[in-house]
Amino acid sequence: MEQKWNFKPSSTLLDASSLSVRGVLTRIMGHIETDTNNPKPVIPLGHGDPSAFPCFSTTPSAVDAVANALRSGKFNSYAPCVGVASARKAIAEYMSQDLPYTLLPDDIYLTNGCSQAIEIITSVLARSGANILLPKPGYLFYEARAVFNGVETRYFDLVPEKGWEVDLDGLAALSDENTVAMVIVNPGNPCGNVFSYEHLAKVAETAKKLGIFVIADEVYGHLTFGSNKFVPMGVFSSTVPVITLGSISKRWVVPGWRLGWIATHDSNDILKRAKVVDSIKNYLDISTDPATFIQGAIPDLIANTNEDFFLKTVETLKTTADICYNKLKEIKCITCPSKPEGSMFVMVNLDLSQLGDIKDDLDFCCKLAKEESVIILPGCTVGFKNWLRITHAIEPSSLEDGLDKLKSFCKRHAKQMN
Amino acid sequence: MEQKWNFKPSSTLLDASSLSVRGVLTRIMGHIETDTNNPKPVIPLGHGDPSAFPCFSTTPSAVDAVANALRSGKFNSYAPCVGVASARKAIAEYMSQDLPYTLLPDDIYLTNGCSQAIEIITSVLARSGANILLPKPGYLFYEARAVFNGVETRYFDLVPEKGWEVDLDGLAALSDENTVAMVIVNPGNPCGNVFSYEHLAKVAETAKKLGIFVIADEVYGHLTFGSNKFVPMGVFSSTVPVITLGSISKRWVVPGWRLGWIATHDSNDILKRAKVVDSIKNYLDISTDPATFIQGAIPDLIANTNEDFFLKTVETLKTTADICYNKLKEIKCITCPSKPEGSMFVMVNLDLSQLGDIKDDLDFCCKLAKEESVIILPGCTVGFKNWLRITHAIEPSSLEDGLDKLKSFCKRHAKQMN
Repeated sequence: MEQKWNFKPSSTLLDASSLSVRGVLTRIMGHIETDTNNPKPVIPLGHGDPSAFPCFSTTPSAVDAVANALRSGKFNSYAPCVGVASARKAIAEYMSQDLPYTLLPDDIYLTNGCSQAIEIITSVLARSGANILLPKPGYLFYEARAVFNGVETRYFDLVPEKGWEVDLDGLAALSDENTVAMVIVNPGNPCGNVFSYEHLAKVAETAKKLGIFVIADEVYGHLTFGSNKFVPMGVFSSTVPVITLGSISKRWVVPGWRLGWIATHDSNDILKRAKVVDSIKNYLDISTDPATFIQGAIPDLIANTNEDFFLKTVETLKTTADICYNKLKEIKCITCPSKPEGSMFVMVNLDLSQLGDIKDDLDFCCKLAKEESVIILPGCTVGFKNWLRITHAIEPSSLEDGLDKLKSFCKRHAKQMN
Repeated sequence: MEQKWNFKPSSTLLDASSLSVRGVLTRIMGHIETDTNNPKPVIPLGHGDPSAFPCFSTTPSAVDAVANALRSGKFNSYAPCVGVASARKAIAEYMSQDLPYTLLPDDIYLTNGCSQAIEIITSVLARSGANILLPKPGYLFYEARAVFNGVETRYFDLVPEKGWEVDLDGLAALSDENTVAMVIVNPGNPCGNVFSYEHLAKVAETAKKLGIFVIADEVYGHLTFGSNKFVPMGVFSSTVPVITLGSISKRWVVPGWRLGWIATHDSNDILKRAKVVDSIKNYLDISTDPATFIQGAIPDLIANTNEDFFLKTVETLKTTADICYNKLKEIKCITCPSKPEGSMFVMVNLDLSQLGDIKDDLDFCCKLAKEESVIILPGCTVGFKNWLRITHAIEPSSLEDGLDKLKSFCKRHAKQMN
C-alpha cells in the first residue's frame, strides 16, 4: 500500500511569491544566457541595491561602528523585543531633527530591515474584514504580506500626469468603515517621485476625514535630488496618526545589514488608545530581531557619519537619474512621464504597438535578459502592466552601457513600418 | 464631533503575547525591587542565553569570522532569499557529519535565528483545518506562531517518569487526517532531556504510521552531557520526512547574532512532491533575511572553531547542571524528576501544598523576583502549570548564589506545620 502523508500546501502561500519583486527578478534572471563562450556582463537595473558598486560604497565609519560593537562582546545576547535602548534613543533623535516635535525612544521599534517593519505593520492591521489602501503602482511586498494575513487590499492611483501624486478623490471613494490605514511610499518606489509639503498636507487631511491611519514608508528618506525636498509624513501627525517605516539600508547603502524601524508619531495618544502600540509590542514578542550588535552600533553609526557621505550619495543619484532620463528619451517605444527626483527608480511606459514580437512587459524583460543580460523589473510586478521600473542607481558607466543595450534591443524589436 | 478612527486591534494578536517566554519574563522582571539603596544583583535563571557570562564566552575565531566578512565589503547587499550559497554549503557539510547520508546545499535555508525558522515552518503548515502536534511541556513560541497563522495545536505528553520521553500512544490518539506534522525538541527545552536513538526510531515509525512529518527543533544540538548522545532526527529520514531547525545561537553561544536554518531531509523527494519545499521558498520570498555578512561568515565560523571550544562549553554545562541538580535536592517543596542531560534547563515540580502564601507557579516566580531578584520561568509558560523551568547555564558562582536564595525563599514561605 502506498504511504500517504496528510500535508497539503496552502494555496495562499503558493500564490504569494508572484507578488514578490525578488521572485519575479529571479525568474527573469533565469533567462540570461550563461552557456556561451563570451557571456555578456549582467547589468542589474532591476532592484534597489547599489551597494556592490564602488561609487555607492558605504562610509567606512559605518563599518567601524558595527565592527566595534561586535568586538566589544557586549552585544552577543538576545536583544529586548522592542530593540536595544541606546539604538531606539539614537533613532528617535535622528528622526526628530526633521520634525516640529521630539520623538521619544519609546516611539521607536527596531526591525530586521524595512521588510520586517512591513510584515509587522500588516500583521498588526490583520483583522477579519479589515482593508487597507495601497498605492498603484506600488511595492507589492505590502500586498503579499496583507494577503497572507487575510487583510483585503484596495488600490488608489498615483497619477503619472501629476508627478505621481495621490488621486485623493479616488482614495476617498475606495474607503469604507473597515478601511483602517493607507500606505504612502515617499520618496517613491517605484515612481522616483517626491511628494510636496502641500500634497502631504492634503493626504493627511483626507486620511483624517476617512478615519484611517497613514503608514509612511520612508525607506528612501533623504534620497532626493529634484525640486521637492524630503518632508517626513510625521510632520502632519497632529492631523492624523502616522506610523513611519524606515531603515539604514538605502541612505547608508547597506541593505544586507538588515536594520530598520517602526516609528509611531502619536502626539495625541490615538495609536496608544487604539491598542496599535500594544499590538506592535505583542507581535514583536513573537518575532525575530535584528542582530543585537548591529542594533548596538546604531548610536555610533548615526553620530559618526559625515554629512559629505550623504551629499556624495545624493549627487551620484542625481547624476545617474540624469543619465537615465536623457538616454531613455532617445528610445522611441518608451515614455518617461516625469524626471525622477528621489529614490533610485524611474517608471516608464512601454508602447507595445511599436514592437513586433513582444507580448507584454514580462515578455519584454525576459527577452531583454536573454539577449542583452540587462535586468529590468516589469511593471506588472508593481501593479502597472506594460510599464517598466528601471533602477538608475548603479555605476554610471554600466548604466550607460545598459541603457544603450536597451535601446538597441528596442530597435531590433521595432515593428517594421511599411 | 469627536474624531473616529476605523482601526480595531486583532484579539488573536493581543492574546499571543501571553504565549511568549519573553513576554512573561518581562512581566516577572517588573517585580524586581529597584528603588532600594542596596538592590540585589539580578540572577537570570529564566532564559537560555548565557552569552553575557565569561565562562560561556563565544570563541574569538567566531568573532573574527564575522568581522572579516563585514570588513571585506562583499556582503553589504541583499542576500538571495534562500541564503548565501557558501553558507548553505557549509551548513550542509556541517550537518552531514552526523548523518548516514549527505545533505546538499539546496536542502538548507538560512533564517534569522531559529525563531524565524519556527515562524517559517508554522506559516508553511498554515492551512485552514490543519493541526500540528506539539510536546507538553514545550516551547510556546510554536503555539504563538501557529495560533497567529490559524493552525490548530494539539498537545502530546512528555512523560517525566520516563525521562521526558514522548507518550507515543497518546500522540497517535490525538492525530487525525488533518494532522500534518509533529514537533520534537531535542535536546529538550524545557526538560533538559536527550532522546535515545531507540526512542527517536519509535517516534519516526509512529509519525510514518500517522502520515505526518517530523519537525525536529535541534537548536540545542550537541549540547549533551549525560548518557544519551545527541542523535539528529535526520538519521531517520528514510522512514519519515524530517525538517530540522537549527542555529548557531546555542552551540556558539551567540543568540544575538540571529543566524539559524531550516534543513529538509528528503531523500525520497516526499517534501518536494508535497510542495513543502516550494512553500518554504515562497515564504522566504516574502520574509526578511539574516544579515548578509553574518551569512557570509558561516564557512569560516564553522571551519575555524576549535573542538576544544565545544568541549569546554559542554564541560561547563555539565558542571552547572550538577550544581543545579544537587542544590535543588536540598529544597523540600521542589522535585526534580530526572537529572538534566542536555540543553540548558531543568524542569522541576513545585509542591504548593508545602507553601503557605503562594497561589501558583506565576505567583511563586513574581514573589521570588521581588524578594530575591532571582528570575525563574513559571511552568505555565511552557504548558505545565505549577512546575518551574530553571536555567543552569550561568556562571557557577552566580548559580549557587541564586539557588541558595531560592532555597531560603522556599523556607521562608513554607507552611507552618502544627
